[in-house]
Amino acid sequence: MRPDDRHSGATTAKSGKSSARITQAGATSRWLAKQLYEGAGRPSARVCLWDGTELGAVGNAAVARLRIHNLGTLVRLLAYPDLYFGEAYMNGELEVEGDLVQFLETVYRARHSGRGNGFWNRMTDGVFSRRRRNTLDGSRSNIHHHYDLGNDFYQLWLDREAMQYTCAYFPRADTTLEEAQAAKLDHICRKLRLRAGDTVVEAGCGWGGLARHMARHYGVRVKAFNISGEQVRFARERARAEGLEDRVEYVEDDYRNVSGTCDVFVSVGMLEHVGPEHYPTMAKAIDRVLKPEGRGLIHSIGRNRAIGPMNAWIEKRIFPGAYPPSLREMMELFEHRAFSVLDVENLRLHYAATLRHWLQRYEGHVEQVRAMFDDRFVRAWRLYLAGSIAAFSSGQLQLFQVVFNRATCNDIPLTREHLYPAGGRG
Amino acid sequence: MRPDDRHSGATTAKSGKSSARITQAGATSRWLAKQLYEGAGRPSARVCLWDGTELGAVGNAAVARLRIHNLGTLVRLLAYPDLYFGEAYMNGELEVEGDLVQFLETVYRARHSGRGNGFWNRMTDGVFSRRRRNTLDGSRSNIHHHYDLGNDFYQLWLDREAMQYTCAYFPRADTTLEEAQAAKLDHICRKLRLRAGDTVVEAGCGWGGLARHMARHYGVRVKAFNISGEQVRFARERARAEGLEDRVEYVEDDYRNVSGTCDVFVSVGMLEHVGPEHYPTMAKAIDRVLKPEGRGLIHSIGRNRAIGPMNAWIEKRIFPGAYPPSLREMMELFEHRAFSVLDVENLRLHYAATLRHWLQRYEGHVEQVRAMFDDRFVRAWRLYLAGSIAAFSSGQLQLFQVVFNRATCNDIPLTREHLYPAGGRG
Repeated sequence: MRPDDRHSGATTAKSGKSSARITQAGATSRWLAKQLYEGAGRPSARVCLWDGTELGAVGNAAVARLRIHNLGTLVRLLAYPDLYFGEAYMNGELEVEGDLVQFLETVYRARHSGRGNGFWNRMTDGVFSRRRRNTLDGSRSNIHHHYDLGNDFYQLWLDREAMQYTCAYFPRADTTLEEAQAAKLDHICRKLRLRAGDTVVEAGCGWGGLARHMARHYGVRVKAFNISGEQVRFARERARAEGLEDRVEYVEDDYRNVSGTCDVFVSVGMLEHVGPEHYPTMAKAIDRVLKPEGRGLIHSIGRNRAIGPMNAWIEKRIFPGAYPPSLREMMELFEHRAFSVLDVENLRLHYAATLRHWLQRYEGHVEQVRAMFDDRFVRAWRLYLAGSIAAFSSGQLQLFQVVFNRATCNDIPLTREHLYPAGGRG
Repeated sequence: MRPDDRHSGATTAKSGKSSARITQAGATSRWLAKQLYEGAGRPSARVCLWDGTELGAVGNAAVARLRIHNLGTLVRLLAYPDLYFGEAYMNGELEVEGDLVQFLETVYRARHSGRGNGFWNRMTDGVFSRRRRNTLDGSRSNIHHHYDLGNDFYQLWLDREAMQYTCAYFPRADTTLEEAQAAKLDHICRKLRLRAGDTVVEAGCGWGGLARHMARHYGVRVKAFNISGEQVRFARERARAEGLEDRVEYVEDDYRNVSGTCDVFVSVGMLEHVGPEHYPTMAKAIDRVLKPEGRGLIHSIGRNRAIGPMNAWIEKRIFPGAYPPSLREMMELFEHRAFSVLDVENLRLHYAATLRHWLQRYEGHVEQVRAMFDDRFVRAWRLYLAGSIAAFSSGQLQLFQVVFNRATCNDIPLTREHLYPAGGRG
């Protein structure tokens, strides 16, 4: 792909004087657009301005067109791309013509290719480094922002069975979303080597699907913590309807307040909301409840490198307080109490696949979403889901499952073969 | 177990005056022995002094007796236990009556139980924190110290087929050493998804067993680096004898000088000799040679926590310059060049099993070892092998296999099922 920065003839001048003005305006906007395109590392896309200026990849090399509707948007994009791309997309001040996921993938890949000038990264790293803190109150408000949007909304596009809002597990490429979420739950249960009668503490249980799955299929008792009131209400109702209320207890409380003792500690998709500054507290909480022979698993979005807070727009609009740690940062949690890490699996392509299912279902129910909220919300969540696919498939985000136990416990299976039974549920 | 600190009547006084002297001497040595025993966290063993003083665990609670032959040894043990336990054992100034491995296991477990006063740790951490540096010259001298003891020596007790001086892989508890080492090599090859025609760079190849195994069974070409002259000579001879010299090249050079490009980077049992201060250099070397779609694996002894240098005696007598990193420290290597970690497996119990085989074979050839070296050497290596079993089985040491690739490469198998074929070689 070679960038093509010719100025299109679409805006031809009407008179001599205004021609000079327009040419000058065209030259300025073209120069700005070029900064944007080059600074972003020359993604395989075309940039089109309101005045007809076009540049970027040509022909088949362009997977999509980014259409910027006015100068203000272009300037804001140059100043704070991480934040304002999302804001402008949400507000309709720019459009992506073509496949949104492919467009975001090429932007991610180009940005981290080393071709760019690091401009986008530099501009955003400093300005938006103030994450909303996950204190006890802060966490409650941050979690409410995202997870209390209404169970009806999430039911439109999550799997119908277990309501899992975390990475599924696709043993084969043609596994359905429902199958893949059940497979994820079983994969986790096998990693934890659940035995009938075990007691389980779950930190951050979402709509309670894992806890119910464990109780139903593995004969264990689960105490599951969550600070999202909407989710806990839903989880309790489901458990009652399924006759599991004697084996699953949902507690509306913070993971820092876990109590009692357990054979198994599990946390799926919560660590992203904890923040590295609270990892010692989390390690302490696990250390407090886990029995000497206990097993644990933490499942979390992560990154290959600790590069400060998440994308600024995601942090502002979607996930306040979220922070995907690098594996090194995650290890600080385990090292803090000298837990022994037994197994780490990176499932990032499974998350890309999961998100593709979610986006497809979301688009299938987009009119209902619009009726529940508004068009800005529809566009914001489309961008968030598409951007997440791009982040996982381009290798910007990872999904780590970490199995651990206590350093002195020798009850460890010799191999991981038990995770891969020939047939169904192990 | 309750410590029993009564003074045995073995040394009864002969006269009034000398009785007072002896009683006082006895009281002092008993007090010192008690400091040693309590400070070590009250291991399940009995301490017996030259003067008949006995204390510690009683009856079946004592797995062994530590017999200390003189006051000087007791004092040195109190001052620098990490170093002088090994020195005194090697010199015959103390004996362990009973099972040496069990004795060392209870010492390890007691020491890290929190019952002790941290005395042993405190005393050693500061004093022996100067590791011998692994500069280009330093590494050569450090590696020569251990690996150039003579191939004849290692052939006495390593597996006969592949001469592997690293952790084997036991799919079943009754796997033989030869089978387990071959299984380890295949496990690594499967993790690396070797394809016929691939080019492999190996950093730190020992006697070259992995390189030959890869070339013979997977049809790849291997360039294997090692700075131990003795090992490289042996490896080349074997490759010639087995008709593999056109597919395996052994290079007597440092990993920092790896060159060319490769589909696969592998390093088994070398990272322990690199030192965290050189991880960025190692990451740079990998980054230089690994193709964009390349795969990598690093296999290394590790720890649950970064607690400074290794045991002082091991560092002085056995492995100068060695440093087993915590997983967090290992992650610094990968994070340095934003490699993506795909899979981590902790095989510590496999290393305990491997070492048990080695120790058994070593004891079976102990007269030959004595003839090659001397009795101090025999005792030093017995302690080293037994101590390593205890360290892995009590959870003081870990064995990490880490699979990685480049962040942008999506050629990743969906599951790890291919590592567990029902039958033999994959």
